[in-house]
Formats: sequence, C-alpha cells, structure tokens
Amino acid sequence: MKTERTTVKRLAKRASYDRETLYAILDEALICHVGFVVDGAPVVIPTIHWRHDDTLYFHGSAASRMLRSLREGVEACVTVTLIDGLVLARSAFHHSMNYRSVVVFGTAREVTDRDEKLRALDALVEHVVRGRSADVRPPNEIELRQTLLLALPIEEASAKIRTGPPVDDEEDYALPVWAGVVPAALTFGSPIPDERALAGVPDYVVSYAR
Amino acid sequence: MKTERTTVKRLAKRASYDRETLYAILDEALICHVGFVVDGAPVVIPTIHWRHDDTLYFHGSAASRMLRSLREGVEACVTVTLIDGLVLARSAFHHSMNYRSVVVFGTAREVTDRDEKLRALDALVEHVVRGRSADVRPPNEIELRQTLLLALPIEEASAKIRTGPPVDDEEDYALPVWAGVVPAALTFGSPIPDERALAGVPDYVVSYAR
Repeated sequence: MKTERTTVKRLAKRASYDRETLYAILDEALICHVGFVVDGAPVVIPTIHWRHDDTLYFHGSAASRMLRSLREGVEACVTVTLIDGLVLARSAFHHSMNYRSVVVFGTAREVTDRDEKLRALDALVEHVVRGRSADVRPPNEIELRQTLLLALPIEEASAKIRTGPPVDDEEDYALPVWAGVVPAALTFGSPIPDERALAGVPDYVVSYAR
Repeated sequence: MKTERTTVKRLAKRASYDRETLYAILDEALICHVGFVVDGAPVVIPTIHWRHDDTLYFHGSAASRMLRSLREGVEACVTVTLIDGLVLARSAFHHSMNYRSVVVFGTAREVTDRDEKLRALDALVEHVVRGRSADVRPPNEIELRQTLLLALPIEEASAKIRTGPPVDDEEDYALPVWAGVVPAALTFGSPIPDERALAGVPDYVVSYAR
C-alpha cells in the first residue's frame, strides 16, 4: 500500500497504511472526490464510490466525460474524507480539524463482464443503504448498457487521521480562552416518503446510520 | 464564471453559475478537495478553504508539497461538496443523492503581503467558527512565516445541485417498494472541553451550526 507518493510526508504520525483502517474509512464515506488530468490540467469531481474486496468502484453515465477519460486508462487519484470535529485551540495557529481521509492512486479498468457489473451495482446499493438491494428493481439490459462502471484496484493507498484535543504551545495554556473539540458527523433525518410511495418505510431506512 | 470547462454537460439542468449560489456552498462547506498535477499524475488532497470576497484561500505548512507545487503556479481544481440526502428510488438505477457542489479552476498566487495574510488568517478562523477570531491569540511572526497562504481568484467556477424526490420510470411507480429521501447533514455534538481549558464554553460554540 505504501509507495513513494502515498508516503505521508507532513505530520507522518497521522498516517496509516493498513487495509483495515483504509477500508473502514472508504466504507463509511458516502462519496469520494476523483481527480484526473484533462489536457494537462487537474479536474476533481465528486461521485459515489464503493468497495468490494480490494477493488474500489465508481460509475456513471456512459456519456460522462470523466468516466470516458478514465476508461481510456488515465491515472486517477481518489480521495475520501470524513470530518470528525472542529479542534479549537487557544491560538489561531493551532486550530485544526479531526478527520479521517484516504487517498488511492491508480489506473481504472472498465468493467464489461455482465456478472461482475450486476454484482458491483448490487454492492453499490448496499454501500449506500444496507438491506436495500433485495427490495429494488434490478438494472435491466438498457440500464446496464447506459452505466459505465470502473474498477480501481486498492494497491497504492494511504490514510491520514487526526483525533483528540487541540495541542497548544505551552505558554498559551495560561490564556483564558476556551479550547476543545466540537464533534462533527454526517447525520440523517426522518425519511421523507415520495408522494407516490406504495410501501411503508422499511426498517433499514428507519434505523439508518453509518 | 462559465467557460468551456466549467459548463456542466451531464444533467445541465442541475448547473448554476451565479456567485450567490456558489458562495453559499463554498461558505457552508468546511473543507474542499484540491486537485493538482504532479509529474503528469493527479493528486487530490482535502484541506480547509475559505472565501473572502471573490477570492478562495487555502493554507498550510510552508513544508507542504501541495502548497509548494501550487505556489509555483501550477493549475488547481478546487471542489467542494455538501451531501444533503440519500435519494431512494424504486429501481436500483434511479437511486441518487441530493447534493450541492462547486468546482473552481484556476492558478493560485502566494500571499506574501503581511496585512493580507493576517486578514485572511482571521477570515479562516471566522470561516470555521464565526465569532472565534476575537478570542484567540493571533499568529506571531514565526507562525506567519511558517504558514504558506495561497489565493485563488473565483473566476472560472460552476455549481451543480440536485434536490427533491426520486424520479422513477413511470411503470416502476406501481412497484410496492418504499421510495423517498433520507435527509443528510453535517451536524455538531456537545463540545468537549480541553482538560486544561481555563474559560467556559463560549456562546458561539454552544450554538454552533452551519
């Protein structure tokens, strides 16, 4: 997992390279930011990602510029970030954030095998809402054709994590300034049924959390 | 704001180019993902951004690879994404997410003017916690030197927004599958005071929200 470019140089004590840590972050995050190069310039697009074993998937319309570029074998950098808290120090300088992030470098391949595609699209629904895939109408042949699916092996990757309270300069601890952490998390509200919904709210929606 | 590469091609009805819409998203988001090109390959790093008038700032250690690359005038793509909800449709294919995102392209300049630097670092604290900058010890000369500050003009940018319920194929509305939206938002918990905090929790922390 650790290569020259995935070696965290700044604040190396925040780095991690083990799959368990990386996968927990990738699985909790709903979206990633995919970076790729177009005509020499960087482009960063948010999209849903999901993981199956040691492969990261993302998908979209067969008409998407991003996916068509990536399908042609250009390099990608996929970054996922979870915000865990605001870290308020006594000095402006030592303010920080608690977070967990993962960066994956690699070259994606297009998934064209029908079985892998169906399995991966099932895993996508499960990534977003566990328990949902059994309820929904699966993709038909036209939808399968319209969906461009890309797979990125998770081989060159690293995580960076900050936790805990602020760390101030010793002399600043005497300042009468509140310091601490404001915890942050993506949370989910009461489901809003579609006007034409014919079924009650399923348990996996009522108890939804990540 | 609208140029060839910021013109949203996919689902163009979700696009917006007006400053009011863009700035509201940039100001609400705590972090951005900055993309840049190193040796021809994309790198995407999460970092705190903040806006002052028509300029987007980001900062970090003078030792940071990312900031040193960008200081040398390489192009950047800064993307900000807010997740507003899970959109559960009756078909797997029409599942989606409600979100608001902004993409800004441009070339950053390093801020070296002392006054602009102090003003911008003040604005950073205010971006994260409004009301906080008056309480904290401001940066000293060493900290100012250690902080590399970059400014990106918000000139080439676009927003993409999805809101509302799922949109299913007409024949799927007859399916007995629950459909609707699960609202999502970054929320903040009870502040955790630092063990050595000498002051009570300020109002701007107690009532913190974005």
